[in-house]
Amino acid sequence: MEVVSLFQVVPEGTVASPQGFQAGGLHCGLKKTSRNDLGAIYCEVPATAAAVYTTNAFQAAPLKVTRESIASNGRLRAVVVNSGNANACTGRQGEADAYAMRAAAADAFGLAASEVAVASTGVIGELLPMDRVVGGIVGLPAALAAGDEGADQFAQAILTTDLVKKESCVTLTVDGHEVTIAGAAKGSGMIHPNMATMLAFVTTDAVISQQALQGLLGQTTDVTFNMITVDGDTSTNDMLIAMASGLAGNTELAPGHPDWDSFAAAFRHVCQTLAQAIARDGEGATRLVEVTVSGAVTDQSARAIAKTVIGSSLVKSAMFGADANWGRIIAAVGRAGEPVNPDTVDIKLGDIPVLIGSQPVAFDEEQALAYLQGDTVVIHVELHYGAGQATAWGCDLTYDYVRINAAYRT
Amino acid sequence: MEVVSLFQVVPEGTVASPQGFQAGGLHCGLKKTSRNDLGAIYCEVPATAAAVYTTNAFQAAPLKVTRESIASNGRLRAVVVNSGNANACTGRQGEADAYAMRAAAADAFGLAASEVAVASTGVIGELLPMDRVVGGIVGLPAALAAGDEGADQFAQAILTTDLVKKESCVTLTVDGHEVTIAGAAKGSGMIHPNMATMLAFVTTDAVISQQALQGLLGQTTDVTFNMITVDGDTSTNDMLIAMASGLAGNTELAPGHPDWDSFAAAFRHVCQTLAQAIARDGEGATRLVEVTVSGAVTDQSARAIAKTVIGSSLVKSAMFGADANWGRIIAAVGRAGEPVNPDTVDIKLGDIPVLIGSQPVAFDEEQALAYLQGDTVVIHVELHYGAGQATAWGCDLTYDYVRINAAYRT
Repeated sequence: MEVVSLFQVVPEGTVASPQGFQAGGLHCGLKKTSRNDLGAIYCEVPATAAAVYTTNAFQAAPLKVTRESIASNGRLRAVVVNSGNANACTGRQGEADAYAMRAAAADAFGLAASEVAVASTGVIGELLPMDRVVGGIVGLPAALAAGDEGADQFAQAILTTDLVKKESCVTLTVDGHEVTIAGAAKGSGMIHPNMATMLAFVTTDAVISQQALQGLLGQTTDVTFNMITVDGDTSTNDMLIAMASGLAGNTELAPGHPDWDSFAAAFRHVCQTLAQAIARDGEGATRLVEVTVSGAVTDQSARAIAKTVIGSSLVKSAMFGADANWGRIIAAVGRAGEPVNPDTVDIKLGDIPVLIGSQPVAFDEEQALAYLQGDTVVIHVELHYGAGQATAWGCDLTYDYVRINAAYRT
Repeated sequence: MEVVSLFQVVPEGTVASPQGFQAGGLHCGLKKTSRNDLGAIYCEVPATAAAVYTTNAFQAAPLKVTRESIASNGRLRAVVVNSGNANACTGRQGEADAYAMRAAAADAFGLAASEVAVASTGVIGELLPMDRVVGGIVGLPAALAAGDEGADQFAQAILTTDLVKKESCVTLTVDGHEVTIAGAAKGSGMIHPNMATMLAFVTTDAVISQQALQGLLGQTTDVTFNMITVDGDTSTNDMLIAMASGLAGNTELAPGHPDWDSFAAAFRHVCQTLAQAIARDGEGATRLVEVTVSGAVTDQSARAIAKTVIGSSLVKSAMFGADANWGRIIAAVGRAGEPVNPDTVDIKLGDIPVLIGSQPVAFDEEQALAYLQGDTVVIHVELHYGAGQATAWGCDLTYDYVRINAAYRT
């Protein structure tokens, strides 16, 4: 990423790194194991808030409640999240439970209900055991341990079948003020976001208008979270919330601000890092697969093609087997329904050309095998048909994906 | 199928059952094992022919050649098919090879080149070993053993990772004449047809105009072959060819003929039976999954929803695990991008209601488990939103799908 010099990556940073934010997590009994299943991000001042939500027609109850909170005045003080139960397709009781979860959190933190967002992830169609949830929420203020330990507990609390927590943090300078942007996310299965990923939270201490934050969030989502897929299934619970405390003291960011491009690049870095981490930790995945498409008629066309290739079960299985089976890649390109010239396609696996001008190229199978056995594989597709380009991220399809999902609920 | 009384199923029938047709197969050395890999259907008179082809942008060379043959005068005498090599993405040499394959077959059978269709299925991107193909074609006329034994050899010859051959045959009466319709198909992987399935061949001795046959083939494909999916990947080689010898002696069939509806129903039965057989024998599959959608705004909308559900990796994994995880079903309905009322959806697994009015229904888990462990599972989705309906067929996602596709080429 050539813009990386516009900001600095903070390897150990967390959602609690930006000024004003705390986070914490605990176990309230939604997961059968003792792993954390309830968490919160808290801001000591009202944070400018923006969000994007799943486009699935069956949006889960917490999305409705969070949407109402943000709509009230564009600000949030806290987000409360549970894992282990999605509170989706739970009807009127589920809606009442999401409101009750918000009310309990408002009580616990001494906030107005409209300052609280709620999110849930886990099994669809089961009612939340509200006694456990409310009991857990009472303990959340105490769980907001200062700094990164609390944020680590939060990042653990939002996971379901994820194996690793996903965090990202960068700093940059905005008219002389140090600004921090951080994020945490969970993913793993039912990952094929359309407007937002499963659950992701971005915090920053920048001063930024709500309109600018919402606009940036939408644009960034299109090229980060909306470009990953684990299994092609778009969740009912996808939600991405961004909160800006404004404590960095910079002049208000909006398009046109001299540091806007730097801020946008830094914001995108955080989102992209989280999106890649979700793809790499897809259910059962053994490696991250990146697909770049260039030479499409438009960026939008390139995105459609990249997502078709990254979502192909046959390509994903070949990646698991470290098999340089480019025939499946070009077949996926060809079924994307986008304009291509059948005679001008180049495909490379990393730096290894396997197809030039739509004709097979002899390549060293041993070299290809060694490359495909790595923990990150990049598939380059050059269409020579226009100037559109895109990148998508996904993972391989493995025995473990089937094992996890053949026995998830029971 | 309430129209089944319009025709009779012939359980042991083959593509050689209709008057005028013979078929045969042999091993010419394209497959590493001794299984058949080359076959032909031959008609003793010029048969009225129609075909539908994949919509993949990268159509394999044999499709171009077959399209030319049928375009020349709408008639075919022979179809030659190889398995083990798709002759796809093989450039100008691949095209030359497809023409050479057609020429060799025309020589062997004493026909004009334009009376011969060719089809290939197997690995993408490798050149056909033409010495073996041509050597095999020379032996095809002798392999056309009379009757069902030859047709059985043909049905074997077109398989790749398929486990069982797929055949269907029915008879009906058309203005006093017995008419037979039969078909053979192969499927298994890269199955998500869009205009035609992997490879399928339908023969009949009916007298039917080319235009009527082509029209019927297109309509029937939309509700049969185009409604199955194994892995969401649309092949470069999908082709469905129908041949009518006309030897039954009926007055020419076309819409308006008194027996047209019977013929169309019988034709659909053959195609649907083959399509279901492809879904049931999907790579690694342990069971056939059928999804019926009713109450959609239109049939087209119902088809889109049914195909989204049947294609969901999460639904497919749950079916492998016999897990009544209806949350994944409704999530798939919700991401299909079609109009639905989020509050009025009913879902049944066989006869077991699990969701009514979008609200979970208590059900007997033991009963559901027993049902889902059967070899055919039907998922009913009723949207209560319109009059559109559709049925789609697929299979479960299993360890064996991953095993087969992680090591297919190497």
